[in-house]
Amino acid sequence: MSDIDMISAAAGRLSGHIRRTPLLTSPFLDEIAGRRVFVKPECLQHTGSFKFRGAWSAISALDPGLRAKGVLAYSSGNHAQGVALAAQMHGAPSVIVMPSDAPALKIANTKALGAEVVLYDRGREAREEIGDRLAAERGLTLIRPYDEPQVIAGQASVGLEIAEQAAELGVADSAQVLVCCGGGGLTSGVALALEAKAPKMTVRPVEPEGFDDVARSLQAGAIQRNAAEAGGLCDAILTPAPGQITFPILSRLCGPGLVVTEEEALRAMALAFLRLKIVLEPGGAVALAAALFHGTEIDGEEVIAVASGGNVDPEVFRLALDRLDQA
Amino acid sequence: MSDIDMISAAAGRLSGHIRRTPLLTSPFLDEIAGRRVFVKPECLQHTGSFKFRGAWSAISALDPGLRAKGVLAYSSGNHAQGVALAAQMHGAPSVIVMPSDAPALKIANTKALGAEVVLYDRGREAREEIGDRLAAERGLTLIRPYDEPQVIAGQASVGLEIAEQAAELGVADSAQVLVCCGGGGLTSGVALALEAKAPKMTVRPVEPEGFDDVARSLQAGAIQRNAAEAGGLCDAILTPAPGQITFPILSRLCGPGLVVTEEEALRAMALAFLRLKIVLEPGGAVALAAALFHGTEIDGEEVIAVASGGNVDPEVFRLALDRLDQA
Repeated sequence: MSDIDMISAAAGRLSGHIRRTPLLTSPFLDEIAGRRVFVKPECLQHTGSFKFRGAWSAISALDPGLRAKGVLAYSSGNHAQGVALAAQMHGAPSVIVMPSDAPALKIANTKALGAEVVLYDRGREAREEIGDRLAAERGLTLIRPYDEPQVIAGQASVGLEIAEQAAELGVADSAQVLVCCGGGGLTSGVALALEAKAPKMTVRPVEPEGFDDVARSLQAGAIQRNAAEAGGLCDAILTPAPGQITFPILSRLCGPGLVVTEEEALRAMALAFLRLKIVLEPGGAVALAAALFHGTEIDGEEVIAVASGGNVDPEVFRLALDRLDQA
Repeated sequence: MSDIDMISAAAGRLSGHIRRTPLLTSPFLDEIAGRRVFVKPECLQHTGSFKFRGAWSAISALDPGLRAKGVLAYSSGNHAQGVALAAQMHGAPSVIVMPSDAPALKIANTKALGAEVVLYDRGREAREEIGDRLAAERGLTLIRPYDEPQVIAGQASVGLEIAEQAAELGVADSAQVLVCCGGGGLTSGVALALEAKAPKMTVRPVEPEGFDDVARSLQAGAIQRNAAEAGGLCDAILTPAPGQITFPILSRLCGPGLVVTEEEALRAMALAFLRLKIVLEPGGAVALAAALFHGTEIDGEEVIAVASGGNVDPEVFRLALDRLDQA
């Protein structure tokens, strides 16, 4: 179980290897939101998302002999790139299992970060069978994307930084912290870190419409699944349901979930481009979208939004820029 | 004259008010450049460019009684926004004199940052006459964009941060530092700071083709002017000639200038979007363009590029995104 000691130990291993991302502000965003907005741009993290933190934490925690055999991940997205680069920087091999219809650019990027990419046919094969076989043959260690204590402890470093930076900037110690939420690794990590370091802050998970499993699970007090498994622009944070490890943490520590539309996520991307000069992907913009467009559901004169990633294709980014022309 | 004592004093006044921008890297950019590339993203500075540093330095250095009467600037670009916000944060009035054909968005942005915008007709009026009259009537202090020691001392804080961050990251102490160069305020400030704090580093001014007044002036050993006064995409860094104060500093401390094409600047913007998740304007991307595409003109295994600003319109940003589709 991730606790503050495990989180502090992970932060020690991450130090000097991850980027300490700043807290960004703009008076123009404050005016839209009706309160001060602080944005934590994890798009500026290595590999363009917070996932590098958890991957580094998990890989650095492995026994060196085991690590030398290599690590395994199932992902065609941000987790794949985080694991590939973190493994490469540890001098460890990595195998990433991806569907054969994954975008060519994502496959190429993951290979360029030093990973061996193994493709499988979604229609005919189960990725777990391939992964289990490779793991058994080579002694690989599976790095789960969120339901893994050392991954959660790594993502929690975002929360440690928020607690320190909020104090430095004079942000109210009771501010709400909005976090883009998929399986809940980042959200539960931030919540655990803030429980210890800024206990008056409340973490609020933010999800896109149609994939609000965490919001509904929190409301029901039990894990709820999404009707759809995939689809839409916010692919980076779409998971079928909150995790077995993450949900109890979310349930104990987080405030009610917030749900935004894809249109709001695109408008938040456009405003992040215009006012903060950062590149966000739709899934990485939902927390900022909630801060900007769901102000009546948020308490306090200041709000912190974690912008979780920026790995967006140019054609999707153009959709966001189109929103500026209409404004 | 700006010296290291003035620079250190300016850094003290800036502390807690400016953003300490990180040094960003990407293995993908390293591969293109053929060496390690460190990018200093001043697009993440308040108002989206380094100009806020110089404006804060100059305004904070004023006698409080004089400051309370207000400041004046001629600019429709980044300097205007930097002066407007820095004045507002000091509780001082600001008057920005802009041509009446300046883009409506730039006028609106500058007003929103608290400035009074005075428009003039470029065909019929001289901005200096309007400015002189306003300054005399109201006791305003003119904040020059680059040929002003306290402005140079403020921009020099970029150099102080580079010296510290390069040491933290283990960058070679003889790395070349590429700086987007217009009138030379940023470039000369960085050069003065590095002369004191990292004297083996060499600053290289970078300009767009057709506006290479600094490169030609350095080569000639005397101030040379551009044939054209304006035009092209790199408007943020277009000035008729190096400054009377900045040129002797550039001449004493800088290596030869580098010159890139607009096409290279757009490709650098595209790669900054894809690999660093930051938004650059064309003029703010020329130093990165030189690092990526003019490697044979640069020495050393590591290079630092200052990305000076990100205030770009969506339509120009789309031109950059188009380069990714072609890649």
